[in-house]
Amino acid sequence: MNDSNFLNVLTGKSASYTPIWLMRQAGRYLPEYRKTREKAGSFLNLCKNPDLATEVTLQPIRRFGLDASIMFSDILVVPEAMGLQLYFTDGEGPKFANPIKNSLDIDMLKTIEPELDLAYVMQTIRNLKQSLPRNIPLIGFSGSPWTLACYMIEGSGSKNYEKIKSWVYAHPELLHSLLDKIAIAVADYLVAQIKAGVDTIMLFDSWGGVLSTTTFKQFSLQYLEKVLTKVQLSLPEKDIPSIVFTKGGGIWLDKLNTLSCTALGVDWTIELSQARAKTNKVLQGNLDPVMLSVANFDTIKCEVGSLLDDYRHANNGSLAEHIFNLGHGILPTAKPDNVACLIDAVHELSQR
Amino acid sequence: MNDSNFLNVLTGKSASYTPIWLMRQAGRYLPEYRKTREKAGSFLNLCKNPDLATEVTLQPIRRFGLDASIMFSDILVVPEAMGLQLYFTDGEGPKFANPIKNSLDIDMLKTIEPELDLAYVMQTIRNLKQSLPRNIPLIGFSGSPWTLACYMIEGSGSKNYEKIKSWVYAHPELLHSLLDKIAIAVADYLVAQIKAGVDTIMLFDSWGGVLSTTTFKQFSLQYLEKVLTKVQLSLPEKDIPSIVFTKGGGIWLDKLNTLSCTALGVDWTIELSQARAKTNKVLQGNLDPVMLSVANFDTIKCEVGSLLDDYRHANNGSLAEHIFNLGHGILPTAKPDNVACLIDAVHELSQR
Repeated sequence: MNDSNFLNVLTGKSASYTPIWLMRQAGRYLPEYRKTREKAGSFLNLCKNPDLATEVTLQPIRRFGLDASIMFSDILVVPEAMGLQLYFTDGEGPKFANPIKNSLDIDMLKTIEPELDLAYVMQTIRNLKQSLPRNIPLIGFSGSPWTLACYMIEGSGSKNYEKIKSWVYAHPELLHSLLDKIAIAVADYLVAQIKAGVDTIMLFDSWGGVLSTTTFKQFSLQYLEKVLTKVQLSLPEKDIPSIVFTKGGGIWLDKLNTLSCTALGVDWTIELSQARAKTNKVLQGNLDPVMLSVANFDTIKCEVGSLLDDYRHANNGSLAEHIFNLGHGILPTAKPDNVACLIDAVHELSQR
Repeated sequence: MNDSNFLNVLTGKSASYTPIWLMRQAGRYLPEYRKTREKAGSFLNLCKNPDLATEVTLQPIRRFGLDASIMFSDILVVPEAMGLQLYFTDGEGPKFANPIKNSLDIDMLKTIEPELDLAYVMQTIRNLKQSLPRNIPLIGFSGSPWTLACYMIEGSGSKNYEKIKSWVYAHPELLHSLLDKIAIAVADYLVAQIKAGVDTIMLFDSWGGVLSTTTFKQFSLQYLEKVLTKVQLSLPEKDIPSIVFTKGGGIWLDKLNTLSCTALGVDWTIELSQARAKTNKVLQGNLDPVMLSVANFDTIKCEVGSLLDDYRHANNGSLAEHIFNLGHGILPTAKPDNVACLIDAVHELSQR
């Protein structure tokens, strides 16, 4: 697949333009997604039905000139496979009926066998490798151990993360034992995804940014590295690129730069030029996703131009080692025409 | 008031220990606050009753060895005085019945006369200057223009700030005209607070962190400076210290360092040592507020020690130019005994 600009950039080869894909690119902003979602009956059914999950993964690829595909799934299928009961409430997001409360709950967590417990994900990946255009690589992913632990202990999204932070500040050993278990599950899950055919893996550390610098290093960064190392040791013959994205992690790019990953995602609060000064890894990002909901074509093109110029300026006049993306997942209110405009603008303005 | 360690640190004089106060120190975590709040009938009544607002401001001063007092009020009383109808819903926070939707709504905003329109705040300040111990300075405050504009356009708190960002990306001139009006109101309000007796002013830029670096400079930073400059020009004979706190602004400390303010507040996501490297202003912060809800005394003392050591290490072995605070407002779940422990630990461990 050396005709993929996305993989070329990730693997340090030259590219003819800056590749672009969008976090959550298969999503509610697309009418065809909403239709398939309705057919599935629920979000979780959609995740668990390989045919429908394949279909929604392909929808943005059919519609736009995206440079990579990301398998449709949810980060919470891993805790579910470990034994937590996952359900989705309208408007309130995902919840666990039996969140982790103590060491007994940790002991009760199952060691997952991804090929068995998450067979539907592996089937989706195999479907996609059959269906995707041959120059469009497939990204597999998982939540980071810290982010999954947040959901597993809080039981849902949270404003102040008081439950998990009571573990951070009062029961750190217990939290480490939980994070250890999750890191093993995440690594096994990603290894299975690679065996099933994904070309790149990504770790979403969506809630790393709620920690202090010290606790980020102890409770998130350390387990990101544990996952990355375990994946690499499990598949020494493979050399699969990996991307790590910590929302709100711009301030810790020097720390994230120590990870054994290929690329770092950044949100829109840091300039790419600042980010480039702090890491020598490939950078991924970082348009404010709200722009696709509220801006017009001219503003989007202008912003793409500024963002590329800023990066080029900090990167010795070169656009190399940058993958365009949003700074967070695309919003349900994004306008599909704006998405098309963005992708075209990135491709046009980044021609080498 | 040269026996105030807080003012001494702010004005570059020597101090015998690191002063501490806590954002939202008059709040729901105190049983005596909850009692007064109940008596007032509503949060807004409490803000608007100078006797009760004075009482709750004094409560944490009576209970703890705090080094500064902050007048009890809410940042949204300014938009209310400008003509927006403010109300509070239980559990959902503040809302405006008539948020700003267009240029006509901006034209309709009133130019405030703080002594008249916010007379209750000025009365609270005058009360407090009578009642506070003479070595405890009083901090006045306002929301930043950007943060107030967020509430005025969104009509409430927001997840993605799509409404105001549609102004940022599609109607920037209109947003600038609104921010101009708010900046004038905020400056006039702070000038009136100074005339009524506050010893320091603080600007809370609670939502600056949702912007990109470029838009932060255009829509928040610029108006923070406008307020600071206007206050200084209005009272050339006074030399009142000022503190600016942008939540999530650690990444922009080099930009914030250009402001005409005395001190910068930082949240817990940046280490004080990193912050010290980026600004020569007095620093205020930055313990994770959740710690006061969930940690035990030993952990709190240990964390205070680490935080002071980290700062000292980056500040040529000196604890000068640092005011201890939380990285955000204290939570309703904070334990009063933990607050006492924190204050004692800061005082003990920072003795010069």
